[in-house]
Amino acid sequence: MYKGPNQKAWEEVPNPVITQPTDIIVKMISTTICGTDLHILKGDVPTVTPGRILGHEGVGTITEIGSAVTSLKVGDEVILSCISACGHCDYCKQGVFSHCLGAEGASGIGWIFGHLIDGTQAEYVRVPYAETSVYLLPADVSPQQGTLLSDILPTGHEIGVKYGQVKAGDVVAVIGTGPVGLAAIATAGLYGPAKIIAIDLDANRIEQAKKFGATDGVLSSETDWKKQVLALTDGLGVDVAIEAVGIPQTFAMCLEIVRPAGHVANVGVHGKPVELPLQDLWISNINISMGLVNTNTLGTLLKLVGQKKIVAEAFVSHTFALENIIEAYDVFSRAAETKALKVILNA
Amino acid sequence: MYKGPNQKAWEEVPNPVITQPTDIIVKMISTTICGTDLHILKGDVPTVTPGRILGHEGVGTITEIGSAVTSLKVGDEVILSCISACGHCDYCKQGVFSHCLGAEGASGIGWIFGHLIDGTQAEYVRVPYAETSVYLLPADVSPQQGTLLSDILPTGHEIGVKYGQVKAGDVVAVIGTGPVGLAAIATAGLYGPAKIIAIDLDANRIEQAKKFGATDGVLSSETDWKKQVLALTDGLGVDVAIEAVGIPQTFAMCLEIVRPAGHVANVGVHGKPVELPLQDLWISNINISMGLVNTNTLGTLLKLVGQKKIVAEAFVSHTFALENIIEAYDVFSRAAETKALKVILNA
Repeated sequence: MYKGPNQKAWEEVPNPVITQPTDIIVKMISTTICGTDLHILKGDVPTVTPGRILGHEGVGTITEIGSAVTSLKVGDEVILSCISACGHCDYCKQGVFSHCLGAEGASGIGWIFGHLIDGTQAEYVRVPYAETSVYLLPADVSPQQGTLLSDILPTGHEIGVKYGQVKAGDVVAVIGTGPVGLAAIATAGLYGPAKIIAIDLDANRIEQAKKFGATDGVLSSETDWKKQVLALTDGLGVDVAIEAVGIPQTFAMCLEIVRPAGHVANVGVHGKPVELPLQDLWISNINISMGLVNTNTLGTLLKLVGQKKIVAEAFVSHTFALENIIEAYDVFSRAAETKALKVILNA
Repeated sequence: MYKGPNQKAWEEVPNPVITQPTDIIVKMISTTICGTDLHILKGDVPTVTPGRILGHEGVGTITEIGSAVTSLKVGDEVILSCISACGHCDYCKQGVFSHCLGAEGASGIGWIFGHLIDGTQAEYVRVPYAETSVYLLPADVSPQQGTLLSDILPTGHEIGVKYGQVKAGDVVAVIGTGPVGLAAIATAGLYGPAKIIAIDLDANRIEQAKKFGATDGVLSSETDWKKQVLALTDGLGVDVAIEAVGIPQTFAMCLEIVRPAGHVANVGVHGKPVELPLQDLWISNINISMGLVNTNTLGTLLKLVGQKKIVAEAFVSHTFALENIIEAYDVFSRAAETKALKVILNA
């Protein structure tokens, strides 16, 4: 639970109750910690108020359903999407669940778990808009695998790979190989690219990226990193550059290596403005995309995890009991040192 | 002819000759002046060297054909695309003629007329890559109408409307209603938008934009301009914001009025970097496009001009004899005062 900037606690709280007919209550089986939770704990997300239970990922068992819920029942195991979608606003009707206008969020942002309402790092969770926001966990996918489908796999896929329009034969560069960068690498492979270049400051992370499907790696600390990337193309640059860090330098790197008529897909969460050198780029026919995940490909990815075409469990570096969440946060927040990727918390 | 920064002349020069088997020689019937020519004359485009004949638009009659040319003949009237496409490089094969890698340009930019080779503000012009870069002028389109198809109509259509993904029911804003902004307005109308909002500093230009299909106008000099634009939407912003000026302020205006999951299509030629406030926009699911025209929709627009679904001649504000080009430049360069749109030069 967020207690204010740089303060967190694991506390006893009353169990949540159904407040809307479209709600369900879920007893969590598995949850995890996201980089966004660390931002919140630093006090960087002022819309999160002290006392808020964090977390927007996980799998649980339904213990109670609202009066309007007909397609789910008590005992069902479900994956919770990080996006709560009312299903009937203008944005939801277009599949843009990331900007759901439903009253629960009322902010035009579909990410409300662990943000505007209590989240999934708890024993029990109230899940709003349940029928339009959860997925039944099939028998061939474990709760721990399912937890990776709440956010990072769809984010890498939708905001990196799909917005970047990765296609067969492309050379794709992914800058930053943390969990979401790795999710972009793992899902880019589904589209038949010629090469996937992992770019990072850390040689160990580049080696790890190769296990997720990167064909090549470039250390961005080397002065000729750009030359090394261009040498992996026909000399004109990459077809798709995916930014998975969230700082001005890595965004600028994408602009340096993308070829004319290529795509820059920003996945990183940024805290500062970036410079766009339009005096050079106006003529370049590049396309720049960005955004919050819609999780409208969660169902597709779920099938691919079941078929083992995506190895979701490879993202899990550490597993803790939920009650040891403070220790899990400590390990996750020192990822460079602990080599943490995703830290699974089992209830 | 460009004679160096801030110097121009209309001079007698030797007639051009065929240098490649794929060339044709064209006797110009009609040409025009582009805003880009004014930039060149200021010395802003260092790749243009003194002595270069300017111009990249126009219609002419073929007087000579190269030995490899089989589908064109002497006497044919043709529209010259502003983009010279070799037709067989990797970019041309993908329809990205704007980044043709052919040896004539050898710069990775398909705009070479009046840039890297002599252009169309002349009596005779050597046209490279003729069969992949010219269009036969049909009987129902005049040379003056055809001249508007060399650059501005395809630019507004491809870089504004198509890259902006304008679709039925959209609210489209066009910031800057010079010739290319008007071309975006005129061609946006083909896609059935709900509203086309013309935004400009000049009330006269907004009135003029309504003749090209703008349904609403907002004066950007008014302090509540943004409120006025949002009031023409459901309050969330426009679906597509088209930038047709080329300065940081107007690019920033597009970012202010675009709705979540909307499109910003940059058409303007910029001379400075712009700021991209990714700290706010990373979550917005917007898409930003930019680029040089491919003229791969020139043929489509040509049919629509013939059918009078696009009134190309409405772009012509002044007509001069080609030999009075210096006077035409003077009128065009004082457009605010002379109300010049496109200035046609007839040979």
